[in-house]
Order: sequence, then structure tokens, then C-alpha cells
Amino acid sequence: MQRREPVVDESGDIIKQIIISNGHELKGYSLVPDDKLKILKAVIDALLLEDVNVVVTTGGTGYAPSDVTVESLRGVMDREVEGFGDVFRAVSFADPKVGPASFLTKASAIIVRGKLVYMLPGSPDAVRLAMEKLIIPETPHLVYLANSS
Amino acid sequence: MQRREPVVDESGDIIKQIIISNGHELKGYSLVPDDKLKILKAVIDALLLEDVNVVVTTGGTGYAPSDVTVESLRGVMDREVEGFGDVFRAVSFADPKVGPASFLTKASAIIVRGKLVYMLPGSPDAVRLAMEKLIIPETPHLVYLANSS
Amino acid sequence: MQRREPVVDESGDIIKQIIISNGHELKGYSLVPDDKLKILKAVIDALLLEDVNVVVTTGGTGYAPSDVTVESLRGVMDREVEGFGDVFRAVSFADPKVGPASFLTKASAIIVRGKLVYMLPGSPDAVRLAMEKLIIPETPHLVYLANSS
Amino acid sequence: MQRREPVVDESGDIIKQIIISNGHELKGYSLVPDDKLKILKAVIDALLLEDVNVVVTTGGTGYAPSDVTVESLRGVMDREVEGFGDVFRAVSFADPKVGPASFLTKASAIIVRGKLVYMLPGSPDAVRLAMEKLIIPETPHLVYLANSS
Amino acid sequence: MQRREPVVDESGDIIKQIIISNGHELKGYSLVPDDKLKILKAVIDALLLEDVNVVVTTGGTGYAPSDVTVESLRGVMDREVEGFGDVFRAVSFADPKVGPASFLTKASAIIVRGKLVYMLPGSPDAVRLAMEKLIIPETPHLVYLANSS
Amino acid sequence: MQRREPVVDESGDIIKQIIISNGHELKGYSLVPDDKLKILKAVIDALLLEDVNVVVTTGGTGYAPSDVTVESLRGVMDREVEGFGDVFRAVSFADPKVGPASFLTKASAIIVRGKLVYMLPGSPDAVRLAMEKLIIPETPHLVYLANSS
Ligand SMILES: [Mg+2]
Ligand SMILES: [Mg+2]
Ligand SMILES: [Mg+2]
Ligand SMILES: [Mg+2]
Repeated sequence: MQRREPVVDESGDIIKQIIISNGHELKGYSLVPDDKLKILKAVIDALLLEDVNVVVTTGGTGYAPSDVTVESLRGVMDREVEGFGDVFRAVSFADPKVGPASFLTKASAIIVRGKLVYMLPGSPDAVRLAMEKLIIPETPHLVYLANSS
Repeated sequence: MQRREPVVDESGDIIKQIIISNGHELKGYSLVPDDKLKILKAVIDALLLEDVNVVVTTGGTGYAPSDVTVESLRGVMDREVEGFGDVFRAVSFADPKVGPASFLTKASAIIVRGKLVYMLPGSPDAVRLAMEKLIIPETPHLVYLANSS
Repeated sequence: MQRREPVVDESGDIIKQIIISNGHELKGYSLVPDDKLKILKAVIDALLLEDVNVVVTTGGTGYAPSDVTVESLRGVMDREVEGFGDVFRAVSFADPKVGPASFLTKASAIIVRGKLVYMLPGSPDAVRLAMEKLIIPETPHLVYLANSS
Repeated sequence: MQRREPVVDESGDIIKQIIISNGHELKGYSLVPDDKLKILKAVIDALLLEDVNVVVTTGGTGYAPSDVTVESLRGVMDREVEGFGDVFRAVSFADPKVGPASFLTKASAIIVRGKLVYMLPGSPDAVRLAMEKLIIPETPHLVYLANSS
Repeated sequence: MQRREPVVDESGDIIKQIIISNGHELKGYSLVPDDKLKILKAVIDALLLEDVNVVVTTGGTGYAPSDVTVESLRGVMDREVEGFGDVFRAVSFADPKVGPASFLTKASAIIVRGKLVYMLPGSPDAVRLAMEKLIIPETPHLVYLANSS
Repeated sequence: MQRREPVVDESGDIIKQIIISNGHELKGYSLVPDDKLKILKAVIDALLLEDVNVVVTTGGTGYAPSDVTVESLRGVMDREVEGFGDVFRAVSFADPKVGPASFLTKASAIIVRGKLVYMLPGSPDAVRLAMEKLIIPETPHLVYLANSS
């Protein structure tokens, strides 16, 4: 991405902050446009890093034609974490700031070679909710499971 | 459909009444049997009307062999609104008149060329719940998104 | 399965006890390892019994590589009961002993030739929750529907 | 379709002529643009006619973005006639006028409620080949099979 | 299967004879009706035998509603041998006794846990062709590949 | 890939030589192990280059567990060129050096954003056959089609 002005990525910053403040290590960060191949490249590059266990994306999970994050990444999954989307929507529905709008996201999680990729909506509130209520509490156990034998 | 006696379609009437009372225009109405080709014809005919943005069906979303609405229409979708079904079931579960029976519906929503097709259960209560709690509040925004560029 | 020591199958025992105490007949029981072909054999053998309407499995619904129950059995389904998984997760989420961990199960239900196969997690609490809150209340009606014409 | 000038549909004319000259009855004809919903409407309207057993389309089977016939119609099939495409390509490959270009078509056949829909390429030669070598010889038997019990 | 009269299974006999006359061991034989669950049971029981590497079925690969062999068994595959169907149809097409009728079969092959399942048509000629031209020559190598690491 | 000894990639060399000798420009070359993520990375990196229209891979199209090229790349396709595999197998079958072994390849072609990815077997003869008989003659037209509007 070529831009002159500084890019503000509030949701990305929230994800980074929550990862770090919960004692996990932040291994990298990448900002990509709504473009299937660029999304795939960024996530695959991250998954190829040996000490990366989890990738979190924000944005591109809605129903605008440009929202292609989930469609792009499902193609490389080994398994979908089928319940992530519906549990996230149930948690969002209970949040009075979201309510019925919760059905408008296809937030998802997939497993690729024992690593997790969470795909979160673009809004700062959604990202905070998903990180604090679901991802931070359950990811260590899920990564452990996905790599058990 | 050929019938001598007048057909009572209570759920269809509720949908029509809620559409109109919320300031939307009702463009048409069609009553079809549980028949894949007739369901497809009715919905495709509606989607071909230029000023139609949304189609709502009632009935045929359960698990009787004759319930084929969702199976018939998913084949023509561009995208599924993945969260509509689970959020509707969560809302239904919370309704004491439904409770656990909420898992017996495959109520769904799909996008076809920027237009929405909601597939609701046949019961008047389910239809009212879906229309009032989910469809009326969120559809204008969802149609806008699905047609953005 | 060949074992010298007695096998303890607490979750299986709970399922059996709840089936019987609710006035249903228990037709058989089988203990199989996390093995696609052995799971398939056990369930297909059960489905071939004329007076069996429902099969309930426990275990193998998580995200360890050895968890293959759902992946094994979906291949033979006629229809998925799409809402069973998300409603079960919503019920689990509301249980303070489960909470966010509810998204880690792919508990599912499928219909094969008018018969139901429920795939439940391996934990005794999960099994009790699913049986008491969802399966016992709704299965008679669902079996009736799936066999209606 | 609204056009002032007469439309020349050479391939459609060949199909009609071959149908009639082989003693079958021609029940209708429709000319539609490369548009998913219009293609679906035309084919579903034909399939709803009681005395129609077979629908043949020409065009839209290639790899231009506008070629959407096969993608549009597969969504409504009960079964794909899996071998039609590869046998047609093998026959085309053997034709010195086609040769390797034969791999550029996704000519297909599907069954919908015991009725056949053949999707042929747009070229007159391809249509003639498919009709004479495959469709005319085998369709009566295939329709019989698809409606046997 | 319960029958009073002796069952003649000419195609099954041809398969057995060709297996044995080519120096392979015949491990079992089973005759099942066109019934998804019974087909699955027979094939899974065979696949569970440790010294069985290959299962060959005959019949049920056409387009009558009762032809369900391929649809039944694909659900348990790990991988489809994608080219078996089209190469078999090409070989059949070249046989003057078959010709264009070759497109009417969905003869297929799948791999399940390193074991092969070939699904052949019901006609004695088709079975002989498939066994002699494709299965006998290539199966030892394919089994070796499917079990390599 | 880190190796001390020089790698011999005979099939890759044949592809390069045929591309160049037919007047096309060779834009890059990459040697990757049978590893889903590394295959994806190599191909996506190539597809992201603006002046690349075609990617050709060799190897990994068979039925060993390590053969994952096709399974890895199909997940990112916009469309499959459905006929490439069967036409390639028909051409291989006619080659007396291949014959029935032709059914053992899942050689494939996909379109990703108007660009072509051909996945060829690992053998030098197969690569030469595919390049000379199918890819060189038809790719310019196919690229043109895939980018038409
Ligand atoms: Mg478990
Ligand atoms: Mg065309
Ligand atoms: Mg047959
Ligand atoms: Mg190879």
C-alpha cells in the first residue's frame, strides 16, 4: 500500500494492545487493501513464520462487495472453527450497541496447520469484544488442542 | 395453484402488514406450493423486477421432507448472510413460546445480485419475530452495503 | 476395542440414563475409538436397525486432530439440522461453567433416512446439557417431521 | 430482450432443426442475454411445462467473465450428468477443427426432477457435434432412466 | 438380502475371476441392494479388514433414481481419484459396443485411508473393460502411492 | 529451500525452455517443497506480479499423501478450467508410454483474477505433452477470454 498520509488503523491498534497486555508476543503487523491475493499473501507469510501461532485480521467480514476477507481465507483452511461466528454474533447481539446488527458479520476462525486465523469485523468495538470475550480466554487451549496428537 | 376455497395465509399477511406499516412499499405477493421449481420461479420473477430489493418467504424451512425452500433457493445465491440463521434462532430461543424448538428451523438469508431473500419459518409468531427484531431494523443498511462499490 | 481394564464412559452412561428415565427405549451401545471407519460402522449399524430412530454420540467434536466424529458422519447425512450446533453453543455459553469455551465444539445433528444422529462433546456436563435442554424436549417432534410426507 | 434488428441465432436454429428432424417435438424457444437470473427464469419456465423433458442451451459455457450459463444452472440441479462434459470434450478433441481448444468449454448436463438440461457452447459446429453424436442418440434412454423407479 | 431363488451376479463373477486370474487374492464378496446404508455398511466392513487394499463395486452408477452407489460412497472418501471416471468413459467411448452411451455412467474411484474403492457400472462388458484396461494394470502402483509417506 | 547440492529440476527446465522457445517471456522461477503454505506463497507471489499472466507448476498432482499441489491451489481459484484435466488425461492415454496410467494424475488448471495457473505432473514427458499439445496452443486465447468484459 502506498500512501503519503499516515494510516490510522484503530482496530488494528486495539488488537495489538490487547495481545501485548495479555502477555502474548506480537510478531508482526501488516496493512493490506480489500484484495483477495494481498490478503492471502499477508496471512500466508505470517503463517509461515515458525513462532507464529495465531493471526488476527480486522475488516472485510461484512456484506459489501469489497468485503472478501473470509471468502479469501477459507480456501486455505484445514478446518473451520465452526462455532466462532455464531458465538461471536450471540455475544454481539447481547451488546446493546450492536443488537440485531450482529447478524451482519461473518466473523470467522479457521485452523491452518495447527495455527489459528481469526477474522474479525472492522469496528473497534467488535474487535475489542471478540478479543476480550472469546479470543484471549480460549486461544491458548485451542492452539494446544489443534497441535495435540 | 388451483383452489376453490379462499386461502388463508396468516404469516404472509403479517409480513405484508409489517412491511407496509414500516413505510416500505409492497411490490407483489405470490403463493406457491412446497415445490422447488415453483419456489424458484416465484422468487426469480420477483428478483427480476427492477424496483424490488427484498424478497421474504414464509414456510418450508423445517425438517419435513416437503420443506425445501432453503435448499431450493441457496442454489441461486451469490452470498449467504451466514449469521441470519443463528441470530434468528438465538432470538427465538429467548422467546419462552419457542425455547429449544428454535433449533428446528433453518431460517436463512441470501444475497442475489445485491438483493436480499429472507426465508422465514411458516409460523405467524416466527415471522413476526424475524420481521420486527431483525429484518425491519437491519435491511436498509444491508441492502445499501450489498450494493456499495 | 480390546481392553483388559474396565472402560469408564461417564458421558455415555449419562446419555443412557437420560434416555431411559425419559421413557425412551435404549436399543444398544457401542464404544469406538476416534477412527473414521469405526465411527461410521458403529453408527451405520445402529441406523440399519429398524426400530432405532435416534443415535447419540459423545466425544470427538472438538479441534484436536483426533476429533473426527463430525467430519466422519456428515458424509452420510441426507440433511444437516443446521441450527443444532449454534443453539447448543448458545445454551453452553449461558452456562457459567462453559462460557466462551462454548465456541470450541462442533456439536452437530444430522438426518439420515428419517433418523437422527446427534453428535455431542465428550464432557459429562455438555452431554447432560444437550440431552436435557434440547434433545429430550425436541426429538420426538423432529423424528415425526423427518418422517412425514 | 428488446431489439429492433432481427437476431440471428445460428446455433439455436441448428438445435431446433436437429430436434425436429429426429422426430422430437419442439415445445418452445427463448433468447436470453448472459444474465444469471434471466437464464434461470428461461430454463425454469421451460422445466415447469409438463410435456417438456429436455432443455438445450447454447452459449455461455466458456471462460469469459460473461459466460455464466453453467454456473447459473448448476445451482438448481438434482444431479449432474458427470460424464457429459468430458465425453463431449473428447469428441471435440478428435475433431480436427477443434483439437486442443476442446478443453476451453465447460459444456455440461444436469437432471432436474427427471428432466434434462444440456448446456452447449455457442459455436454452430460444437452444437451440431453435441446434438448428433451424444444428445440425440442417448437422451431418450437417459430420460427414461431418470424417471424410472 | 433375503431371496429364495439363486441370485445371478454375472458382473460380480467377472470381477472375482479377473482378480484371481491376475494373481490377487479375493478376500470377500457381498451382494447388497441399491440402498445407501447397506452399500456403506458392506464397503466399510470390507475397508476395516486389515489385509484388504481394494474394494470393487458393480452397479448403481447410472442415472436412475435407484442408482446411488457413487453418491453413497463419496461421502466417506479421503480423496477422489478424479481421472478414473473420465478415462473409463474415454475407453468406453472407443468401444463400438458403447460409444456415446459412455457418458451415462458416473463410474468413479476414491481413496479411503490408503485403500481404493472402485465403483463400476453394472454391465458385464463395462466391468471387464474397467478391470482389464485400467484397474488391473494400475492398482498396485496406486495402492503403493496412496500408502507412501 | 536450503540445499547444498545443486537441484536438478528437469521438468521445470522443460517448461522454461518451451515457454521461451514459443516467444513468451519467462518472468520467474521458484522451487518449493510439497508443502501447502509454501506452494501457496510461491504461486500467490507470482500472481501478484502485474506482468505475469500464467503460472505453470510441475509435480504434486498424483495420489501420494505428499501430493498436495492441486488441493492447495484450488482453494484460491475464481474458476476451475474444468476440462483441462480430462483432456490432458485423454491425450496422455493416447500416448503409448502412458496409457492407463493417465488416470493417476489430477493435472488441473484454474483461473485467479484473469490469470491462469496450470498444475502439471512431475514427469518430464507429461510436462512436455501438456505444454506442447494444450498449453502453448490455447493459453493466449484463454487469457484473452478470461480478461474480456
Ligand atoms: Mg472431545
Ligand atoms: Mg461462449
Ligand atoms: Mg446400473
Ligand atoms: Mg508427482
